[in-house]
Formats: sequence, structure tokens, C-alpha cells
Amino acid sequence: MTDIGPSPLALTMGDPAGIGGEITLKAWRAKKGTPFFVIDDVHRLKSLADKTGLDTPITEIHDPALTTPVFADALPVLHRPLSAGPDHSSAVIDSIRLAVELVRGGQASGVVTNPIHKKSLYDAGFEFPGHTEFLAGLAGIDTPPVMMLASPELKVVPVTVHVSLQDAITSLKTDDIVSLSVITAKALQEDFAISSPKLAVAGLNPHAGEGGGMGADEVTIIAPAIAKLREMGIDASGPWPPDTMFHSAARATYDAAICMYHDQALIPIKTINFDAAVNVTLGLPFVRTSPDHGTAFDIAGTGVARETSLLAAIKMAADIAARRL
Amino acid sequence: MTDIGPSPLALTMGDPAGIGGEITLKAWRAKKGTPFFVIDDVHRLKSLADKTGLDTPITEIHDPALTTPVFADALPVLHRPLSAGPDHSSAVIDSIRLAVELVRGGQASGVVTNPIHKKSLYDAGFEFPGHTEFLAGLAGIDTPPVMMLASPELKVVPVTVHVSLQDAITSLKTDDIVSLSVITAKALQEDFAISSPKLAVAGLNPHAGEGGGMGADEVTIIAPAIAKLREMGIDASGPWPPDTMFHSAARATYDAAICMYHDQALIPIKTINFDAAVNVTLGLPFVRTSPDHGTAFDIAGTGVARETSLLAAIKMAADIAARRL
Repeated sequence: MTDIGPSPLALTMGDPAGIGGEITLKAWRAKKGTPFFVIDDVHRLKSLADKTGLDTPITEIHDPALTTPVFADALPVLHRPLSAGPDHSSAVIDSIRLAVELVRGGQASGVVTNPIHKKSLYDAGFEFPGHTEFLAGLAGIDTPPVMMLASPELKVVPVTVHVSLQDAITSLKTDDIVSLSVITAKALQEDFAISSPKLAVAGLNPHAGEGGGMGADEVTIIAPAIAKLREMGIDASGPWPPDTMFHSAARATYDAAICMYHDQALIPIKTINFDAAVNVTLGLPFVRTSPDHGTAFDIAGTGVARETSLLAAIKMAADIAARRL
Repeated sequence: MTDIGPSPLALTMGDPAGIGGEITLKAWRAKKGTPFFVIDDVHRLKSLADKTGLDTPITEIHDPALTTPVFADALPVLHRPLSAGPDHSSAVIDSIRLAVELVRGGQASGVVTNPIHKKSLYDAGFEFPGHTEFLAGLAGIDTPPVMMLASPELKVVPVTVHVSLQDAITSLKTDDIVSLSVITAKALQEDFAISSPKLAVAGLNPHAGEGGGMGADEVTIIAPAIAKLREMGIDASGPWPPDTMFHSAARATYDAAICMYHDQALIPIKTINFDAAVNVTLGLPFVRTSPDHGTAFDIAGTGVARETSLLAAIKMAADIAARRL
């Protein structure tokens, strides 16, 4: 038997009205690193390749094990047909479900998800707040998984994510900061090979509240979380003034920043690495990454979307899968 | 009469326990651009120059007009003695007051303030929330002046500043966004020579609230401000998702970002330009800039503090003063 290398990565379809298809075609053309297959409608991808002029050879496979032999010559597609009508929600969801099944069964080494459009899925009865929660449901785990945005220059983990800024403040809890930091520290060791990870915990308020003069959340919620983490032997520091945590000299002092709300985490990483940040889900029993952008409906189908973030997501999934082996 | 060039800039003392003195000594050593004098205790500066090994020649002057002839050979100091005791608040305040007097009288072309420590001043009975409000009081203006942080790559203007994040949300008002944006647009024209300034107005919530699904502030407060500004003929756009406003391609589409809270403005600019951002006060009848850092008590007196931001503040004050002439 020929050596067919490590298991391939499974890419999901994402919303077929978004840019997932074309960035997948483009990512295949780079033909670098770990081979991957995509779970998608083979006819849709062929017409997309024609329409966008991306001219990508596509081969239908029926077994993920055939990915590696095919990959050098064509994009391997595990065919799952779209329905005839305009609502493709069930195909989108099935693509994710199958990817998880294959990775849990050892036929794929990790899942890389293309962007979905939550509203379309909700309208079709999807009951999870997002991709990550659906994956946790499929994994059958109770502890909520953790979203990390990672680039070569910065890793950030928001404690609160897709809620209003008001709700982020109101819902901030010591226990959540602790449990998320514990998952982050463990993932930095196991998935990123950082033996003694350093966590920098951000404050919530300007200047980290200046000792209570501009908000008490640092004193009442964040500092107690840091104290607990240190008792547990985790190297957590802070609460740091949020505005001076992210320049290059500051970034050199820690491995991941624990952030109190969505934009505190995403403003710095997207400012520095707009095209190359990757969304990694920590705390799942399988490897899952995703490009750090949405469906980009406005440019979908034109072939102009950039595959940079998807390529970075593929590389990161392969690296983490190799470390977990 | 010899041509002594444009009026010099007036630098204030700042808190004498902070780094103001040593960065002023270092800034003089660069001897670039518009000459400046500092209003400070000449004996204190001489011993600081000795202590830090900065070895800077210092000359006392009694008239700002003598700044330019002296400047090539020594740092010109308009002597104001510190008091004998430990409380130097009155000297700190007098230095600011005199700088404003000189610039209003035409003997200086602009004020560059060194960092003060508000708590020390409050303890001594200072009644203004900060530097900027004190300057507005000295200027006798009713409209609150506006703080802009400016670097070669980005200009940001926070609508709310030194308040907790909760208070920033609660106090956000359409009228404040409008009046601050009007002052900003005018300053971009007059002080920065941008004939048709473009303002990018940030949302408050993740993804700018996604049409109300993650916070309604964009719909109820921010979008109405943008509509008003556009009616007034100001080129304002938004509300933009905060996390995708600050990467280089996005920055190229506007002249200043109007931000809803302190860290939304300061995280991106300090991440990109930690050492070179300048604090400019817009809407004052005289020119005022300041380095974008605090007193740094922890390193003061050692000579290691960097003068980069003060030099940038001096250059920006000189440029704005030249445009206002």
C-alpha cells in the first residue's frame, strides 16, 4: 500500500450564496501542505469554477481516503447535492454534520468550516446560536467551547462574543473568565506547543478602571479571576489597560490576550492581520478552524474574494492535528 | 532687526515627578524644526540633566522672543521656581496658565503640554476634570473642546473619554456625536489642510449591532447623528463595524474615525503607533498638542523615557500653527 500521509482535512460548504466555494477553489490552487476535501455539491462547484474563470479541476470522491491521491490534480469533492429550491439550509447543516462525523471517525484529521449565514439557518429552524455551539452539540460536550482568533502576531480570546456591548458588561462573570482562561491555557500547551503559556487579561474600562475611579469591574470581577487562575498555577497577569496591550513590545510579553468583549479582541487582531487571522475553536474533542470572515454576499460569485484566511485556517488545522497525534 | 522666524512653541513643565523634564531635554537634543522654550524651574532641569547624564546645556531666558537665538546652543527655559515643599501643584498649573497667556498674546505659536498627574492636582484643589477642560476654561469657550489622537497612519476622535465603559454607553448622545464631528471636520480643514474631510463613524456594538440584533444604539443614536451630519454637508459615513475599520485598506477610505468610547479609539492607534501618536485638542482658539502618554512615574528620573511622542507633538503643533497663520 502506498503511503497516503496523514488524514486529510474536511472543509464544509458554508452558505452556498457566500464566498466559501470560490475561496475553496482558490485555496486548492495553492496546493500546499495537508490535502483537503470539501463536502459540497460537485455540480455547483463546477459551474462556480466556470463562472468565476477560476478554471479549477474538480473530482468527485466517495471516500475521504482518496483525497491525497486526487489532491495533486484536482479538488476532491465529497458530493452532497443542494436541494432544488432556494433554501439550502439542510445541505449547509448536513455538510457540517458529516465533516464532524468523519473527523470523529478518524477519516479526517480536522474540520475547516466555510462561513455560514446564521439568519438563513435560523429561518430554517436551526436552534444553535452559531457554528461553534452546533459543533459543541455534535461533540456532546457540556463546557462551552472557546473562540480564539489567532494570527502569527497575536492570539485573542473574547470572554463575551456576539452580544451587545451593554450585555457584555452586564454578563461579565469571574467564573467565565476563569473557565475560559483554563481552556485557553490547556489549548496553548496541547495545540500550540507552548509549554508554559502566559495569559494577559485585559481590563474592561479605560486605563483598566484606574483602581475603581473609572469603573469597578476590574476590582470586583476581573482581578478575582486572575487571582484564582494564579492559585491554579496558571500564569495569568492583569487586568491590563486595554489600549496599551496590543503594540508589538506588549504582545511579546504574553501568548494570548483574554479580552472582555468582542471588539476589544477583534479590533487589534483585525487591525494588524486583516487577511490572515484564523478562528480556532478551543475545548472541542476534534480540531476545528475557520477563516475569520463572513459570507461576503456582496462579492460572492465574482471570484475576487481572497483565500488568505482560509489558507491560514487550513494550515493551522493541519498543525494542530499533527500536534494532537 | 534680524529675522527670528516664527514664534516659538511653549512647552509646559508637566508633573515634575514625571518624565516631562527628561523628554524635554531629549527633544531639544534633536534640535529639529520650530524652536521651543519650556516653562519650568531652571535649577530642577539642570540637576535632572546631570542626574540622568543627558548633559543638555540649559539657558534661562526672560523673553520668549529670545528662544530662537538661544535654541541652537541650549534649551531655553522661562524660569518658574518650584516651591520648597513636596507639593508642586501651583507651579504645574502656573506653567500651563502662562503658556496659554503667551500663545494668546502672540509670543508663542502654540502650547505643547507635558503630562500631568490629575490626582495630585485634585488634591491641591484643581477643579477641572483634566488638562483639556482647564485649557477650555483659560480660553473662555463654552463648547467643550475635542480630543483627537493623531499619527501618520490614523486619526481617531473618541466621543466619550475618561468614563467607565458603562457610563460611555449610557451617556452616548446623538447631539454629542454631531457637535464633536462638526468640530473635527472643521479642524481637519483648517489645521490639517484636508479640503473635503471624510469622517468614518464607528458603531458601538459588535458588527455595528447587525441592524438591531446585537444592540440598538446604532439605530437609535448613531445613524441619526450621521444623517444630521450629512444634511449639514459633512461627509460622514457609518455606523461601521468597529473591528474592520482600522486595517490599512479601511484607513485609506477616511480622514478621521469618530469613535464611541475611549478604547475603541485608543486600541487601534496605540496598537499601530505606540510611540508616535499625538494628542491634539480641536476647537480651542489656540494650538495645543501633547504627547500621548502619561507621567510614567515608574521610569521618571532614569533618562530612559522616549521623546518620540513629544517630538511628534512639537512637530504637529508647529505644522498646525503654520497653517493657522
